[in-house]
Amino acid sequence: MRQTIRLIRVVRGVHANKFANKLTSPMRLSIASKCAVVAVNSGQRRQYASAPTGTQVVKLTSTMYPDVVRDERFGKITAEDIEYFKSVLAPGSVLTAAEEDLSGYNVDAMRKYHGQSQLVLKPRSTEEVSLIMKRCNARKLAVVPQGGNTGLVGGSVPVFDEIVISMSLMNKIRSFDEVSGILVADAGCILETTDQYLADRGYIFPLDLGAKGSCHIGGNVATNAGGLRLLRYGSLHGTVLGIEAVMPDGTIFDSLGKLRKDNTGYDIKQLFIGSEGTLGVITGISIFCPRRSKVVNVAFFGLESYENVQQAFVRAKGELSEILSAFEFMDTASQEQVARFSELRRPLDEPHNFYVLVETSGSNRVHDEEKLQTYLEGLMESDIIADGVLAQDETQVKNLWTWREGIPESLGKSGGVYKYDVSIPLEELYQLVEDTRVRIQEFGHDIGTEGSNVVNVVGYGHLGDGNLHLNVAVKHYDKEIEYILEPWVYEWIEKRHGSVSAEHGLGFAKKPYLKYSKDQSVIELMRQVKKVYDPNGIMNPYKYI
Amino acid sequence: MRQTIRLIRVVRGVHANKFANKLTSPMRLSIASKCAVVAVNSGQRRQYASAPTGTQVVKLTSTMYPDVVRDERFGKITAEDIEYFKSVLAPGSVLTAAEEDLSGYNVDAMRKYHGQSQLVLKPRSTEEVSLIMKRCNARKLAVVPQGGNTGLVGGSVPVFDEIVISMSLMNKIRSFDEVSGILVADAGCILETTDQYLADRGYIFPLDLGAKGSCHIGGNVATNAGGLRLLRYGSLHGTVLGIEAVMPDGTIFDSLGKLRKDNTGYDIKQLFIGSEGTLGVITGISIFCPRRSKVVNVAFFGLESYENVQQAFVRAKGELSEILSAFEFMDTASQEQVARFSELRRPLDEPHNFYVLVETSGSNRVHDEEKLQTYLEGLMESDIIADGVLAQDETQVKNLWTWREGIPESLGKSGGVYKYDVSIPLEELYQLVEDTRVRIQEFGHDIGTEGSNVVNVVGYGHLGDGNLHLNVAVKHYDKEIEYILEPWVYEWIEKRHGSVSAEHGLGFAKKPYLKYSKDQSVIELMRQVKKVYDPNGIMNPYKYI
Repeated sequence: MRQTIRLIRVVRGVHANKFANKLTSPMRLSIASKCAVVAVNSGQRRQYASAPTGTQVVKLTSTMYPDVVRDERFGKITAEDIEYFKSVLAPGSVLTAAEEDLSGYNVDAMRKYHGQSQLVLKPRSTEEVSLIMKRCNARKLAVVPQGGNTGLVGGSVPVFDEIVISMSLMNKIRSFDEVSGILVADAGCILETTDQYLADRGYIFPLDLGAKGSCHIGGNVATNAGGLRLLRYGSLHGTVLGIEAVMPDGTIFDSLGKLRKDNTGYDIKQLFIGSEGTLGVITGISIFCPRRSKVVNVAFFGLESYENVQQAFVRAKGELSEILSAFEFMDTASQEQVARFSELRRPLDEPHNFYVLVETSGSNRVHDEEKLQTYLEGLMESDIIADGVLAQDETQVKNLWTWREGIPESLGKSGGVYKYDVSIPLEELYQLVEDTRVRIQEFGHDIGTEGSNVVNVVGYGHLGDGNLHLNVAVKHYDKEIEYILEPWVYEWIEKRHGSVSAEHGLGFAKKPYLKYSKDQSVIELMRQVKKVYDPNGIMNPYKYI
Repeated sequence: MRQTIRLIRVVRGVHANKFANKLTSPMRLSIASKCAVVAVNSGQRRQYASAPTGTQVVKLTSTMYPDVVRDERFGKITAEDIEYFKSVLAPGSVLTAAEEDLSGYNVDAMRKYHGQSQLVLKPRSTEEVSLIMKRCNARKLAVVPQGGNTGLVGGSVPVFDEIVISMSLMNKIRSFDEVSGILVADAGCILETTDQYLADRGYIFPLDLGAKGSCHIGGNVATNAGGLRLLRYGSLHGTVLGIEAVMPDGTIFDSLGKLRKDNTGYDIKQLFIGSEGTLGVITGISIFCPRRSKVVNVAFFGLESYENVQQAFVRAKGELSEILSAFEFMDTASQEQVARFSELRRPLDEPHNFYVLVETSGSNRVHDEEKLQTYLEGLMESDIIADGVLAQDETQVKNLWTWREGIPESLGKSGGVYKYDVSIPLEELYQLVEDTRVRIQEFGHDIGTEGSNVVNVVGYGHLGDGNLHLNVAVKHYDKEIEYILEPWVYEWIEKRHGSVSAEHGLGFAKKPYLKYSKDQSVIELMRQVKKVYDPNGIMNPYKYI
């Protein structure tokens, strides 16, 4: 059912009370032709992979990071190994560098890391994964489990000659219970496809992110993906009910429960959530899916200070409360970057220092619009927002989301991006962006001038989760810029007890910086788990821990 | 702010459309004097501990379970040990059996297990816990961490002479951030006190259960408590952001983060959630607290079949959606049991086979009442519910909750209760209660007659979580009844891939039955974790795994 389209623009200066008088009944919203309130069916939006699309040759990781050396304990693949894999896997499931171009499996989505795997295996069942792992463990052959290869920290591609186990052929929905909302599916199901399957049944996957058209749900769980709606549906640690995985020795870890409550022993599956392929190969997941909201509204507004952004957030929690499903913020530099590459008209005429995208998801159009209207009127009345559009039909909703989701893609067009995905206490969150700009300039680099390598420094992210994306776009990757930024950024975060990786994970890129976020006592317990579950260290080596 | 009181009774036979016409505006609800819609401030209710209150002597666990023998590897407490503990702890923190009655620490809330500890330690800081554990580990003295001692599986009391580490003096709120809603507090804070602290600031602890006046938040985390609002706020695996714990060797595990997102390594703290004191002593927690809902509504209705109960649940998910905060069901036997010991008038005049309590929590009274009204009218129209009250002011809300929360207490008055807290796929959930009645009768026992030991067999629980409480009330515990029920109940659950302990945990009582819920591959990984983190096995022995 398509909702009626209404378009209203919130204009600074219109007195909120007057507004209120005019707009208390949702049926009257359309009288104000300069304003926009929009309701649409459960938000399908244009999706963005955050990957740069360049065609430049990506240097080998081993060349870029000469200090990282191949672990000589690992075996080398022999003709017998390949024969064995061919004998136990279906035809077409064993890809060798001698016969195929494996660069799609060796190069990461950021085009920053380039492994040298000579062998890609594509199992079709958990049992096949088990046979693969038994052989690899016996022969000490290192492996990299790979989902959609959309990760941003180099975790999903080999460093040297590790075998890639691609999960792309394990992509079946195993079961879905329309009463409980519990889905059981293969790890290799694509997030968007899975979400569409659920949408057809009135449910939603409790996770959404830019790369949804390519990423696998198994990879999402393996990296504990956060995404756009964590503030509404919570973390995967709460929603994942079960995991099936193959351990390094080939044992099938069978914990694919379909129960919301099960207090029988240590919740071992939690260790796999966010383990980035270092403990085993996740082959299936069971997850609790909420009912899909009937109505989705999106508002987009401009604000003059970061303090205003925080005020708008606190009020959203109080007033939008149970229908709030996203609260994303973007700085002006990030919006200029998107505008540079977009054909869309900017949502607001005048520039502002900050922008916020608020999404609500609820079950009653009239109620939701009323709440949103009251919220926005309150913000206007208190001069917290300067201008805003309260968007509209599906197209408008998609377009508004573009100004948030299009940021990574637009930054990638410059050449390279130093990406920092960090958690910081809310009140200091944006300070990191400002301090980064000052630091870069102090080291003699202009930002955005023709002669400078530094194209832009932007901040945006999931304010509701205290999660900032600090991105430094450059024309080309440059060790000098890297040394200016690192470990300085991590030290800055450590001082605020933040996290050096809020949602992207550690992978290859952040492994050296774990100590800035985790106490030595915690790292020691992690090491013990890794050692006991993967004694030969063959699972996704050179990364994580 | 006290909400206006309105009282409406939903009466079977009144045509729903007529209802709808009359009641579309919340302002008109009061016209129907026989019906009840009620809004109150965020639900404070009467609380219930589920503990029987008998004064009978509780037999020693070692007598009742002669097969369980003391582990001879463990040291015995010496005068030097006691001197040492007195030297490092504050005065009054070392309680010995020679000087005090320790039965409150040795006997569990169910009055079913009775340990023989001669020493109770009450540390006041994490550092003191660390000093205690260093000594215990060096001397191989076994310990039992104890919170409010409200557990239902004998997990919080000693079996033999283990030292009790009572957390009751570690009860400070460490910090609360009113913007993010993140609370950091000592493990020994009482749940209700903590929730009241949050209520004063407009927030809610994301967990509620009957024993809240006594249980500790550290114990809640250690046992992964589920409770009444899991369907709204999710599991502790999703809401707990950080844990501070003391490991068996005295090392302080410092993972007390205050970040909603932190993907830096294995989420080790998850292992402590639900570990029941077998890995370390939880001393502090950090938890994400949602905003407290401004409006709470409660409806209570009668239904004729379990199928109707399921239908009402599915509709509640769809129509009450984001405001649904509890969906509890009770069978007629459970309600008769409460009625036997209650002075309250029963909510519905006529008896029904099943009863449901629905709670909504939202931010807008008018919206919430409208949703609830529409929902109930729909149920009436479809003949899903037979009768109902849509309750009222705080007193009425408390009274209605009594008919759910008073069940364990009323059962306990008979003598003893065999309690089964299980997860089963929804469609078969109530079948277990019926099959249990048949089985007991097949073995020649009447239910509820004067000459029979079996007083009642009741089913109730958190339908929204697929969590059934099957309770068999007896005049006195009797091995014959136990043998009729066990392992038969567990085998019944195993066939349905359910859980033998949905939320109560394993403790001493369920340890032997773990295999009915967990695959051997999973149990093996649990054992490895236990062995590596607690090599001497001194943490809460004879239990769990």
